[in-house]
Amino acid sequence: MIIVLKAGATGQEIGLVEEKIEAYGLAAHTSRGVERTIIGAIGDERKMQPEAFEGMECVEKVLRILKPYKIVSRDFQKEDTVITVRGQNIGGGTVALFAGPCAVEGREMMLGIAAQVASCGASFLRGGAFKPRTSPYAFLGLGEEGLKYLAEAREATGLPVATELMDPRDIDLVVKYADVIQIGARNMQNFRLLTEVGRLDKPVILKRGLSATIMEWLMSAEYIAAEGNRQIILCERGVRTFEPSTRNTFDVSAIPVVKSLSHLPVIADPSHAAGKMSLVEPLAAAAIAAGADGVMIEVHHDPETALSDGPQSLRPDTFGEVAARLKGIATAVGKTMGKA
Amino acid sequence: MIIVLKAGATGQEIGLVEEKIEAYGLAAHTSRGVERTIIGAIGDERKMQPEAFEGMECVEKVLRILKPYKIVSRDFQKEDTVITVRGQNIGGGTVALFAGPCAVEGREMMLGIAAQVASCGASFLRGGAFKPRTSPYAFLGLGEEGLKYLAEAREATGLPVATELMDPRDIDLVVKYADVIQIGARNMQNFRLLTEVGRLDKPVILKRGLSATIMEWLMSAEYIAAEGNRQIILCERGVRTFEPSTRNTFDVSAIPVVKSLSHLPVIADPSHAAGKMSLVEPLAAAAIAAGADGVMIEVHHDPETALSDGPQSLRPDTFGEVAARLKGIATAVGKTMGKA
Amino acid sequence: MIIVLKAGATGQEIGLVEEKIEAYGLAAHTSRGVERTIIGAIGDERKMQPEAFEGMECVEKVLRILKPYKIVSRDFQKEDTVITVRGQNIGGGTVALFAGPCAVEGREMMLGIAAQVASCGASFLRGGAFKPRTSPYAFLGLGEEGLKYLAEAREATGLPVATELMDPRDIDLVVKYADVIQIGARNMQNFRLLTEVGRLDKPVILKRGLSATIMEWLMSAEYIAAEGNRQIILCERGVRTFEPSTRNTFDVSAIPVVKSLSHLPVIADPSHAAGKMSLVEPLAAAAIAAGADGVMIEVHHDPETALSDGPQSLRPDTFGEVAARLKGIATAVGKTMGKA
Amino acid sequence: MIIVLKAGATGQEIGLVEEKIEAYGLAAHTSRGVERTIIGAIGDERKMQPEAFEGMECVEKVLRILKPYKIVSRDFQKEDTVITVRGQNIGGGTVALFAGPCAVEGREMMLGIAAQVASCGASFLRGGAFKPRTSPYAFLGLGEEGLKYLAEAREATGLPVATELMDPRDIDLVVKYADVIQIGARNMQNFRLLTEVGRLDKPVILKRGLSATIMEWLMSAEYIAAEGNRQIILCERGVRTFEPSTRNTFDVSAIPVVKSLSHLPVIADPSHAAGKMSLVEPLAAAAIAAGADGVMIEVHHDPETALSDGPQSLRPDTFGEVAARLKGIATAVGKTMGKA
Repeated sequence: MIIVLKAGATGQEIGLVEEKIEAYGLAAHTSRGVERTIIGAIGDERKMQPEAFEGMECVEKVLRILKPYKIVSRDFQKEDTVITVRGQNIGGGTVALFAGPCAVEGREMMLGIAAQVASCGASFLRGGAFKPRTSPYAFLGLGEEGLKYLAEAREATGLPVATELMDPRDIDLVVKYADVIQIGARNMQNFRLLTEVGRLDKPVILKRGLSATIMEWLMSAEYIAAEGNRQIILCERGVRTFEPSTRNTFDVSAIPVVKSLSHLPVIADPSHAAGKMSLVEPLAAAAIAAGADGVMIEVHHDPETALSDGPQSLRPDTFGEVAARLKGIATAVGKTMGKA
Repeated sequence: MIIVLKAGATGQEIGLVEEKIEAYGLAAHTSRGVERTIIGAIGDERKMQPEAFEGMECVEKVLRILKPYKIVSRDFQKEDTVITVRGQNIGGGTVALFAGPCAVEGREMMLGIAAQVASCGASFLRGGAFKPRTSPYAFLGLGEEGLKYLAEAREATGLPVATELMDPRDIDLVVKYADVIQIGARNMQNFRLLTEVGRLDKPVILKRGLSATIMEWLMSAEYIAAEGNRQIILCERGVRTFEPSTRNTFDVSAIPVVKSLSHLPVIADPSHAAGKMSLVEPLAAAAIAAGADGVMIEVHHDPETALSDGPQSLRPDTFGEVAARLKGIATAVGKTMGKA
Repeated sequence: MIIVLKAGATGQEIGLVEEKIEAYGLAAHTSRGVERTIIGAIGDERKMQPEAFEGMECVEKVLRILKPYKIVSRDFQKEDTVITVRGQNIGGGTVALFAGPCAVEGREMMLGIAAQVASCGASFLRGGAFKPRTSPYAFLGLGEEGLKYLAEAREATGLPVATELMDPRDIDLVVKYADVIQIGARNMQNFRLLTEVGRLDKPVILKRGLSATIMEWLMSAEYIAAEGNRQIILCERGVRTFEPSTRNTFDVSAIPVVKSLSHLPVIADPSHAAGKMSLVEPLAAAAIAAGADGVMIEVHHDPETALSDGPQSLRPDTFGEVAARLKGIATAVGKTMGKA
Repeated sequence: MIIVLKAGATGQEIGLVEEKIEAYGLAAHTSRGVERTIIGAIGDERKMQPEAFEGMECVEKVLRILKPYKIVSRDFQKEDTVITVRGQNIGGGTVALFAGPCAVEGREMMLGIAAQVASCGASFLRGGAFKPRTSPYAFLGLGEEGLKYLAEAREATGLPVATELMDPRDIDLVVKYADVIQIGARNMQNFRLLTEVGRLDKPVILKRGLSATIMEWLMSAEYIAAEGNRQIILCERGVRTFEPSTRNTFDVSAIPVVKSLSHLPVIADPSHAAGKMSLVEPLAAAAIAAGADGVMIEVHHDPETALSDGPQSLRPDTFGEVAARLKGIATAVGKTMGKA
């Protein structure tokens, strides 16, 4: 950590900063420049919060040298993490294909869509039983009933299922039915929930928050990893910007940036990012071309009557055609896509 | 709701949209323009989700006419909501002054700061017992112990206490000690938590999410109100933008905008918005000048050793001087500030 | 245009709005709903500014139905615009490959890089003679001398050259040497400059402003087109967001969105978007996969000594390898890349 | 400047960085930590661009210690700059009150409004003769004719006039009539225009760009100052964010932040920030409470027929009432407002 002092900091003030650094067990290394004195803290800076120094009268700014996350960083583990669930891989040369409806709306609907996406090469099923909705008057999901249909769809297709967990009180229920637990964008900094899934022995998809920096996203992954669960899949789903023509702005750069900083696999959710079915294919293609380890695509047999996110859902036949073209992109970047 | 069709929409497509509107119990009102056909849905549009139409092939865009929230809107209640807790007001000509440490760090610390801010005119005490922190390695709060010290500080000063609730599993505990429940920015769309506090008979401070639009913020307030609890205080605390020189960008316009759209009181948290003690006074003054019904100021007896948010905390003596000057601004806008 | 009146608007107020619409030569079409009265203006709404109504006391909001741009819209021209310069295409099944240094630094440097990128399949040369720089103390370009080296590089390689125009006073100079004129992101709303290039008979690359919406970007293209020049190439180069790990956030969705709204070709500049050489390839690949009609890549023989944008420039040998892999992506989406 | 090397940087690589620093005439100061080697460059770091190091293979990141601007910084000049034009002050205990129409629409209109705002205490007149407009089909200003009416209004009222310059080709014309030159938000990084006004002996209002950081804004001021003109007035007018309920998000924190970093006066333009007349007063009040040295308010005798920005313009009588209340805020912060 580098502590930059204000112009005119006195010797006594410099001494106070040095003492504080040493009190944390680090060594202070002071350079008196012409315009500013700067003090380096040598040692494991993760023990110190920048705030501890920013609050001092004589301090102008504090610069981190090391990353504040550890277990999830590329420095900690050089090789890519590959996660395997019921024989299907995420990471390591495979582009995982998650597909299914936004919300589980009924038994037949779920089984029907599951069979169709499985036949088009999907490697994971998705579907929400608990839905976070902006309006209290909207459809909030079928709850346990929805989880049962998901489990039934898994039996029918052999594909593992991923579903969202919103509330720590639902953990036992969701764990009972799901193969992969999804933490939604709005819960990316629900730290209690992160701690709970960190204690599970199940893969977790951690969606990026609407305005989360990549550093904060990795810190949330660190929350999970710090409790012991290292089966974490990061999912880019668009960030909030000033641009109104798409629901969110899909941050495709986040894919290579995260892969350089962390060993964890990164997937993309173009359906939520764009909010429009016509954008799903170009964004999924972009994600794969940029190095994503998977894509998550919403499929609905009748988008016009969907209870949630109809406008961004593909019809099963369109999904089949899109999946075939995406395979071509995966091949162009030297990967295979979909079901093992 | 207005449904704009794509150029060249056929008579059959127009018919499908009209039928769908009527199926929701509204009347369809179609205008065929030179370039576009537009269909108005006359009736209570809150029964329909725009998505139901956006998913249709022939639809170009869907425009809402009414606001998606109801109980919290100015249309629903013309007069300002005024909330009174243990004799202290929020709204209605009073600028409430919330003060106290970011986190409760100990008994003596909490009682000491409480006594000091009370003597400077604070009307509410604040302090966190459960702290949401970006890093899993940071101080996470004292839990129930902290709540007890808060309650003790209330006994000593007579001032009501506000504290954060992060997890639905802590509700009974927090309700036992707190007068006002705070929902933090990161939980603004933790819909389960909102539903739970909506069932309480306690005032709730709802902080604006880091990238929440004003409409989404009011929808979250609607979640609480829809369950019965209408004692809601909205709190602007800065939004996330591209500007790095402040932790967040304090959106002072949100104050008059919310007051025009809703009857709920709005307060401001300049400490979290700015992240720097030197900005707390100008932002608090700006908030009051713009019409805020209260300000929330972090005070710490020794910001340099604070376990959380030291850089933005004022020392008690500075707080006293700032409070006196803020009273001058309150007077200039025709209000009184602080303890009744 | 739809004008939504405030609750309780009187008959007289409704009449005033109707008269105003009719004064613009459009027809007013009024629907009195339960909660709001809305008035549709039927006819060419581009004649009216929404502001003319937003300023009226009784108006709650004004919603546009039509797009404010015309000539550049897909409604105006269904087929894709394809631009051909000295035998090289932009649009229509070809992915144009623009390559060269950020700034022209000298004759040998420019000729050397030009020869190398030409041999790797580039179809256009790029290089700045006038450089917009944030700091007045930075290298501002060689001016006419730089333009001469660009022209010489064109003679040597046969490739057309693109270069930036910053000031209307330089038009004659730049037109004399360049094949394609580039308008930089900071000048996207320099309306006088747009008007001037609109009068030329040269293709213009119009970069998206750092915080320009897609609608504003298309309006700036309309400025050029309205003067007669329809050879416009839009260039996505990243927008400004809260994310600090990349210089800008490359908005890959803008590519398919623009292609649906407009017939103009769209290219991408991953070098400026990312600001880091390691991100250039993944972003270029993403852009091509999402449908871009070209990519612009900065190449420098010695990025460590570059006078501008070294950190994002590829070395010529790396460029050759990247270009070969990008061709694979272009093939996967059914296009050819680079020199005709 | 601090250069942080990647983990595992070799002795040879460290040597290259040290040499490069020394080649710029600074001293290198290397600390080998456990996880990273960091190299400090001691001396005037403004001679070096961070880019020169970011392009090196072994470099992880480069951190600036000093600010990249100099003449406009508080370090360079401790005392506030106060600018006096025809007896009216900006800065130093006075809140300047700029008022007038967005665009000069005619002689009578301009003289009428000028007389009214002068009688309500305005200290400067404003009005645009050259208007930057998003649409090529909108009113673009009266040009020289407008400038003449402004000059006539100055004769009539005795108040100095401020007006916008958009194009370097108009400088002689604008200088002939105006007392204060305004550079609009869209031209904040029109570096050629900045250089030109830097050579004038006239005060310049430099509006903040829609997505300009405070550092970039100050760098643009430095462009002007570096040419010799130090009569610079910074004007906050809102930045672009995700929030759609206001045209821009007025960044009130920018006022105290700029005043801590720079000695230049800072004014606010709440009319453009908000885009709505009902928000003009609360934002102007907030700006003054936060320390602004002036406010700029659009006034129009008939906002409903205004050719530009009607919805945000106050009627003269409303302006008078607002000005009176704003004076109360100015008094509360110990300043005087308006005409000397």
